[in-house]
Amino acid sequence: MSKAPVTVIGLGPMGARMAAVFLENGRPTTVWNRTASKAAPLAERGATLAATPADALAASELIVISQTDYKAMYDSLGGETHALKGRVLANLSSGSPDELRRAGEWASGHGAELLTGGIMVPPPAIGTPGSYVFYSGHEATLDRHRETLRELGDPTFVGMDAGLSMLYYQAQLYLFWSTLTAYMHGLALLGTAGVSAERFHPFVIRSMATLAEDGPAGYVRAITDDVVSGRSRGDDNTLLMQAIGADHIVEASREAGLDTEGPAALRDLFWRAVDRGHGDEGLSSVIEVIRAPAR
Amino acid sequence: MSKAPVTVIGLGPMGARMAAVFLENGRPTTVWNRTASKAAPLAERGATLAATPADALAASELIVISQTDYKAMYDSLGGETHALKGRVLANLSSGSPDELRRAGEWASGHGAELLTGGIMVPPPAIGTPGSYVFYSGHEATLDRHRETLRELGDPTFVGMDAGLSMLYYQAQLYLFWSTLTAYMHGLALLGTAGVSAERFHPFVIRSMATLAEDGPAGYVRAITDDVVSGRSRGDDNTLLMQAIGADHIVEASREAGLDTEGPAALRDLFWRAVDRGHGDEGLSSVIEVIRAPAR
Repeated sequence: MSKAPVTVIGLGPMGARMAAVFLENGRPTTVWNRTASKAAPLAERGATLAATPADALAASELIVISQTDYKAMYDSLGGETHALKGRVLANLSSGSPDELRRAGEWASGHGAELLTGGIMVPPPAIGTPGSYVFYSGHEATLDRHRETLRELGDPTFVGMDAGLSMLYYQAQLYLFWSTLTAYMHGLALLGTAGVSAERFHPFVIRSMATLAEDGPAGYVRAITDDVVSGRSRGDDNTLLMQAIGADHIVEASREAGLDTEGPAALRDLFWRAVDRGHGDEGLSSVIEVIRAPAR
Repeated sequence: MSKAPVTVIGLGPMGARMAAVFLENGRPTTVWNRTASKAAPLAERGATLAATPADALAASELIVISQTDYKAMYDSLGGETHALKGRVLANLSSGSPDELRRAGEWASGHGAELLTGGIMVPPPAIGTPGSYVFYSGHEATLDRHRETLRELGDPTFVGMDAGLSMLYYQAQLYLFWSTLTAYMHGLALLGTAGVSAERFHPFVIRSMATLAEDGPAGYVRAITDDVVSGRSRGDDNTLLMQAIGADHIVEASREAGLDTEGPAALRDLFWRAVDRGHGDEGLSSVIEVIRAPAR
């Protein structure tokens, strides 16, 4: 039995890699890109080049979209809405959750179904064992195309609300970027005293293991438990003490001539929570300020 | 052979726990605190109460200090500097690296030696197997008192510059707080769509394993390699694309009614790096802005 065909719209680094992965898997693959030259290397590897977006839509039931943002989808397909009927659009572009929800309504209005997705690896890792993708929309629709989509990464269904995949994606990405930029801040801080990145690296690996440890000593676990229970206990490590510690980090960064914007945002978050009366509670109490910044 | 005596100055949650750990280890322990009432529970457990700071200094060669900040040390001991001669002050309080360096000079000026320390666990974990403490100062001095200090946590010597222990401490703490507050931001974001903390928790544990993986696929490893080599390659995941993604996180947070200060600081860092010409490079290029915020 031959594999179900797929169409890839958008051939930036992410889309081009997706199309290449489908081709490597022997799947009939049609591609379309606004700048046609980007499609040439894929044509050499066996992809069919669609002449128009309507042709791209006609070639497969499943259309995988990877563009800079959701606006690009309307730019590409907005003039061809007659060709959307019966199609499944799996849009893996980045956008805000509300944009994704509006896109779901737009697709429905033209007889198509939208799966929104957030792919959790950079392009070179697509199709490799660690790759996974958050999807939201109709689970039955995902199931119908699971065999195809699995070639990109493990499909992880998170719910019907079209905005959900992006919320998961952004929550993960924010954690990811925050951790890595904080690591770089630490490297810069230690660098001012002549400490190399290789010297600090093992301590950070050790810290991350402590953060992630899924037992009573794990800090991510402790935050989860606090948020679930709605209680934040300061015990012997109050938020007030931590806010004072955050002051010291801003001061140390300033003394060292480093950027202070990141540390200052953290410090301000802590002090806003202290000012609201959470000073005797624990770190997890800052979620109250994150949830309701003004009151 | 009886154990060497130790003095603990400062009996907040951290200092009180340290004194308790020394007592549990059967070590002769003298305590002093500005508010004497905090010493009473330790006296019941066998601690000697010093009547004055001078008595506290006279009782042991090693004086462990745990106070809110370094100013508190001058307030406590500044009137008793004659009693400092020959003493080793292991100050585990928080401060800026420059404050620590000045404290080292102050101690030397009075014939004492200063070890500065940053203890990497909250009070309840002091003396437990995972506890460790960064020390800087004279390594021979640390070695002379290693047996005593080991009871608090694994002594990790990081160098002679008195400010170093605090730089390591702050670099670790900033990473720690940044990761956990970003996690809470993610929980808040997903919470607006009805997703529970328990549902998101396993994805975060998985992400942290990917971040910390000490192989070619590990992201902390990749940042370390880039910083060591001084090269940041965008390849198929440029900083420009990531800056656009950071815009979306700010937008999603605003749509959800959440705090935007943290995400905005991250977004601004990324765009400042793009504006300096790093848009085609990778994430690691933002360290250039952290190191030299204005130019």
